[in-house]
Amino acid sequence: MELELIRRLSQPADTKVILCVLDGLGGLPGPRGRTELEEAHTMYLDRLAEAGCLGRTLPVGYGITPGSGPGHIGLFSYDPLAYEIGRGALEGTGIGFDLGPDDLAARGNLCDLDADGNITDRRAGRLPTEETARVCEALRAISLPGVEVFVEPVQDQRFVLVLRGPGLSDQVAETDPQREGVKQNDAAALSPEGQATSGLVREWITRAQEILRGRERGNGVLLRGWSKRPDMPPFPELWKLRAAAVTVYPMYRGVAKLCGMDSLDGAHTFEEQIAIVRDHWDEYDFFFMHYKYTDSAGEDGDFRRKAEAISEFDALLPGLTALNPNVLVITGDHSTPATMAAHSFHPVPLLLWGDNVRKDYLHQFNERNCAMGEIGTIPAKEVLPIAFAHAGRLAKFGA
Amino acid sequence: MELELIRRLSQPADTKVILCVLDGLGGLPGPRGRTELEEAHTMYLDRLAEAGCLGRTLPVGYGITPGSGPGHIGLFSYDPLAYEIGRGALEGTGIGFDLGPDDLAARGNLCDLDADGNITDRRAGRLPTEETARVCEALRAISLPGVEVFVEPVQDQRFVLVLRGPGLSDQVAETDPQREGVKQNDAAALSPEGQATSGLVREWITRAQEILRGRERGNGVLLRGWSKRPDMPPFPELWKLRAAAVTVYPMYRGVAKLCGMDSLDGAHTFEEQIAIVRDHWDEYDFFFMHYKYTDSAGEDGDFRRKAEAISEFDALLPGLTALNPNVLVITGDHSTPATMAAHSFHPVPLLLWGDNVRKDYLHQFNERNCAMGEIGTIPAKEVLPIAFAHAGRLAKFGA
Repeated sequence: MELELIRRLSQPADTKVILCVLDGLGGLPGPRGRTELEEAHTMYLDRLAEAGCLGRTLPVGYGITPGSGPGHIGLFSYDPLAYEIGRGALEGTGIGFDLGPDDLAARGNLCDLDADGNITDRRAGRLPTEETARVCEALRAISLPGVEVFVEPVQDQRFVLVLRGPGLSDQVAETDPQREGVKQNDAAALSPEGQATSGLVREWITRAQEILRGRERGNGVLLRGWSKRPDMPPFPELWKLRAAAVTVYPMYRGVAKLCGMDSLDGAHTFEEQIAIVRDHWDEYDFFFMHYKYTDSAGEDGDFRRKAEAISEFDALLPGLTALNPNVLVITGDHSTPATMAAHSFHPVPLLLWGDNVRKDYLHQFNERNCAMGEIGTIPAKEVLPIAFAHAGRLAKFGA
Repeated sequence: MELELIRRLSQPADTKVILCVLDGLGGLPGPRGRTELEEAHTMYLDRLAEAGCLGRTLPVGYGITPGSGPGHIGLFSYDPLAYEIGRGALEGTGIGFDLGPDDLAARGNLCDLDADGNITDRRAGRLPTEETARVCEALRAISLPGVEVFVEPVQDQRFVLVLRGPGLSDQVAETDPQREGVKQNDAAALSPEGQATSGLVREWITRAQEILRGRERGNGVLLRGWSKRPDMPPFPELWKLRAAAVTVYPMYRGVAKLCGMDSLDGAHTFEEQIAIVRDHWDEYDFFFMHYKYTDSAGEDGDFRRKAEAISEFDALLPGLTALNPNVLVITGDHSTPATMAAHSFHPVPLLLWGDNVRKDYLHQFNERNCAMGEIGTIPAKEVLPIAFAHAGRLAKFGA
């Protein structure tokens, strides 16, 4: 649904909707010919499947493997092709940095340079995170005219550089040549509007490398993914409701906050996430819950662990249904088949349970059944319009 | 299919197509776990399902509950989001008022006002239609500068006000506050272009309430849904054919006429509608037939009566197939599950029978089978392109 139409038809209602994202949920048949979801113990998911209806999401489009950003942006009812989160903005978001509308962010790597300035290791031997934190502290000494500068450590040799000020542009070249044995690229302007920013970036790099000179590892910086936060209409305003994200990992919290959701922090496990939802049940109409472990296991190529992560989620599910949401949606932001050890382009299983559901009499929540389900295979951005329709939160169109 | 492409590829042929719309056809499982369609006697529909193929329509979009206007506009192959029929235009259309391109229409209610001008009954005790007709007759005495004025009774206390003249705008506030115990709203201009029209409307209301003063019931007027007719290319021209609507209720006749179809009037039952189609078989290539009773029962929340309405339709179906149309399409303009007692957003069952059909070997016409059918789940506006393709009325695209 177009955002303008959402804005026009959305209406408040006394109903609760939970969107539960099992990261990388979709899979492929493993050693025994069954997918992770088919191999897992899914007694409670299967009961919901029986009482609800199934379908699949296409996160961005046919054949497109989504990153975590677009995977979630889509589920939040925005077109992930219209609202791209650049790598810099995503990295900043991922460490919980609150990106403002005037901020320009880049992903940084500390790297090793030889005496001629050639890159000998793009990752500076994967410098320890604590060491990178100390380096970032030192780099904060650099000030630039007319902008605020933030340097934040991420993990290993990675850091985020954020410039804050009016008129900054993402039209600046990436300095990381993405290979070794060559010099870094110049942070040149990619178009006339990038010229002022290019000047600031060049100055920052020069001064940073002066500070780092003489270090054995990490005597250079590489910057890429210049980006600002996408300018999307806030989710609560669009849908006329109070929305909370209940996550463990900063990345997903960050994407939800970019969309204008509140974040209820403090959970370290899905059990604690459920407890937080329960504690704040009356304060919100919509809860986004993120479950990470399906994806991490999938990315590691660990079929059995991914199946176990699903089983563990299943065992906790009664705690969620006990809250009696009007609509509960369970899906993924993309597929991460353990056999591929990576995100994939495959459609993602979708389960919808609650009020006004047209049952499809499919009794098991798995990829095959989802392909035959009542909901069909739909763009991820249509999941919440459908869920909110079931919850009485969309008015009739036309007389 | 885009209208321009329809215009380009449509071609005359010596074939007949019937589109039969069972209003509000789609349902949800009722008390016995089966939908209205599953509960009904559908011997003839099931035979057609077996010999034809199934699918589902999405009337406007995912999660969108359509009104009758957009539900039909879509089935007539127009994008219901591009051609919106406002409430006033729909009400005028519904009583058979021939809306011209310069006409601005509003839905009117006669209401009761107390001595202070507060609304005590928005519907004037549901004034009898004949009484409202007499009131409308009296209100026709009001003339306004530069425009023609029409006041037409609808049903009970409802009437339509149509202003005809150049430059009229729908940017006028609705005077119906939609609740009682308060004064009516001012017919203010909603934007600068509405100013002249606002002046005319205010004058009409003042003079109308002068005329009605002293009446015990119906001494005030409430107006809403200011709208003009949508400017759509005529259906017969688009499709290069002769099209007739055979309906009982004026609303559906009206929407068909807005699309440029002829209307063959006089039927009071579906049996009579079939007789009219038979009598005019040679004069038209396309017949739109509307069956109301499924929707009225659904809206009343009467599960059994909706199932019976389907059974009654089924019993009459042989009279239609006996005409040997090249293609017969049976679907709904939206779902009206009796359990919801309202229009809903659920996809709508679709049956296509006739020439060149790819059978899907599904033997029963119901929601579950339709979700698995050959046609898939398609936007309602693609139903007629597919039907006309089966009837040889769409030329090849490209050499």
